[in-house]
Amino acid sequence: MTRANPQWRLAARPAGAVTAATWAWREEPVADPADGEFLVENEYLSLDPAMRGWLGEARSYIAPVAVGDVMRAVGAGRVIESRHAQFPVGAHVTGLFGVQRFAISNGRGVQAIDPKLAPLPVWLGALGMPGLTAWFGLTDVGKMKAGDTVVVSGAAGAVGSIAGQVAALSGCRAIGIAGGPAKCAWLRELGYAAAIDYKQPGLNLKHALRDAAPDGIDLYFDNVGGETLDAALAKLARGARVVLCGAISQYNATGAWRGPANYFSLLVNRASMTGFVVLDYAARYAEGVQALAAWYATGQLKTRETVIDGLAQFPRAFDALFAGENVGKLVLRIQ
Amino acid sequence: MTRANPQWRLAARPAGAVTAATWAWREEPVADPADGEFLVENEYLSLDPAMRGWLGEARSYIAPVAVGDVMRAVGAGRVIESRHAQFPVGAHVTGLFGVQRFAISNGRGVQAIDPKLAPLPVWLGALGMPGLTAWFGLTDVGKMKAGDTVVVSGAAGAVGSIAGQVAALSGCRAIGIAGGPAKCAWLRELGYAAAIDYKQPGLNLKHALRDAAPDGIDLYFDNVGGETLDAALAKLARGARVVLCGAISQYNATGAWRGPANYFSLLVNRASMTGFVVLDYAARYAEGVQALAAWYATGQLKTRETVIDGLAQFPRAFDALFAGENVGKLVLRIQ
Repeated sequence: MTRANPQWRLAARPAGAVTAATWAWREEPVADPADGEFLVENEYLSLDPAMRGWLGEARSYIAPVAVGDVMRAVGAGRVIESRHAQFPVGAHVTGLFGVQRFAISNGRGVQAIDPKLAPLPVWLGALGMPGLTAWFGLTDVGKMKAGDTVVVSGAAGAVGSIAGQVAALSGCRAIGIAGGPAKCAWLRELGYAAAIDYKQPGLNLKHALRDAAPDGIDLYFDNVGGETLDAALAKLARGARVVLCGAISQYNATGAWRGPANYFSLLVNRASMTGFVVLDYAARYAEGVQALAAWYATGQLKTRETVIDGLAQFPRAFDALFAGENVGKLVLRIQ
Repeated sequence: MTRANPQWRLAARPAGAVTAATWAWREEPVADPADGEFLVENEYLSLDPAMRGWLGEARSYIAPVAVGDVMRAVGAGRVIESRHAQFPVGAHVTGLFGVQRFAISNGRGVQAIDPKLAPLPVWLGALGMPGLTAWFGLTDVGKMKAGDTVVVSGAAGAVGSIAGQVAALSGCRAIGIAGGPAKCAWLRELGYAAAIDYKQPGLNLKHALRDAAPDGIDLYFDNVGGETLDAALAKLARGARVVLCGAISQYNATGAWRGPANYFSLLVNRASMTGFVVLDYAARYAEGVQALAAWYATGQLKTRETVIDGLAQFPRAFDALFAGENVGKLVLRIQ
């Protein structure tokens, strides 16, 4: 059976911000799965800041999306045809299925998910890559221990909203940085001990951090880079760990990035700054999902999703991500 | 007995580069040591880039030198009067004795040294703080392992010249960055596999590092910061460790420091950047001295000292340090 497969392809690499010219809408027929493959129908797509990095020319931790290819994205959906024993028809799965309605997969990097435990968007957020990023970033890279003062930037985002809860549920004092009073109020509901609105007029972020963390920052989980990273570096405690998860403030930079002028605070405070990529933890995902799912099942781990409807809206959804419009996890519902 | 004690005091905090107005020459009488104290006659003083940091107003890893106080410096000399059982008359010692001929000490932070094993200037260099800085920075902070490609900046300096040798003697490939052909030639004599002259006209440091380390940098030992740190970050191998030892290119900055624009390479390469202060390793100094002294005794660890004569020459010696005039360890001979 030949199906029309609506999809977004990368039309041209953006210089700076993504524009309408970046994307091209196509409808193409879907092939039948070969032996060892299956066909998935995406129901939701994940929108992640990391996608901006995949549009550049340079090889980063993952190859760039080639011009002309279907845009890379994590999807969640249902297997509708299968010649793969592990993923039978009816199974729910997540994986790098791309910005399209239908995808053929050989199962590599695909996770089976249980929609009875949590709805699909949660499997793209708290129980998916963003949740696992928060979990391994804090526990493994950041060596979080009870009693730590943990500061999270981009705290109302998909990763940050989980990171603060994981920190609080682990006996730490979590301080979130986010833009606007509504996001900050939500952070306090999530268990953040303090929330700093970086958009507040006249705010001095260094002073705000000093007030919220008078004994200094033990663990800084950075999603944004730029001035926020610099302010946090200035307020590290002795032996602090800075975990580099992202730098959304810099992804659209056309020139050189803003380097952290206060990096020498790492020496003064015998501190470290470490980068990581959650894909490296693939062999340990189950461990993270188990911990997060246990908190989710008891209602201790709260999630919020911002849903944009319609595959055609992908370009607008992408822009919304960088405009900071979403609270929690931003997903696109295909239909 | 009252002795005239010539000394240099901090007259005024410098804004940017140190000038003649920074220092004040004094001759003051020396008191007699009290019970539990001894009097040391300095023979050599160590000149270290870190001294620039002690002149600032801000508390760093150690309190700043107060305006009006004798300038802080590590000295090497001989005990000439003693009411301290551990440091009898005739003992040779190093410690923070200050920029002066005579000093009273209670023994805190003082190390006994053996002038038969090595001359006093070596106890201020290869077998002193600079050598220990190289040793603990590489082995403990940098987790150096045989086969690593190790890049050292400020490679012809007191710390860098030891760091490259320690790396080479430990089975690593050492690449040094230094200014000028004479320094680079010396680096090759020391066992550096390659030496990059950053002052060479038209040099692109990133390209030079790519050529010298085609598989990337496993361990970068940074003494200089600035553009050099940025170039090294751009060429890290997967899992690299960046050890922050100093930032001599930035110490005289009057405005904000130059932050490393390429810091996100730490994420792409799952790498870390860690600062340290050798003073934290005080309890383990003997371990480092033992390793370095064994290599020194067999002639495998080579040292070079640049000696400037006369306590009166301290301001000039201080300037020479930042002008990059010295090769190896810069010391001041008191008389």
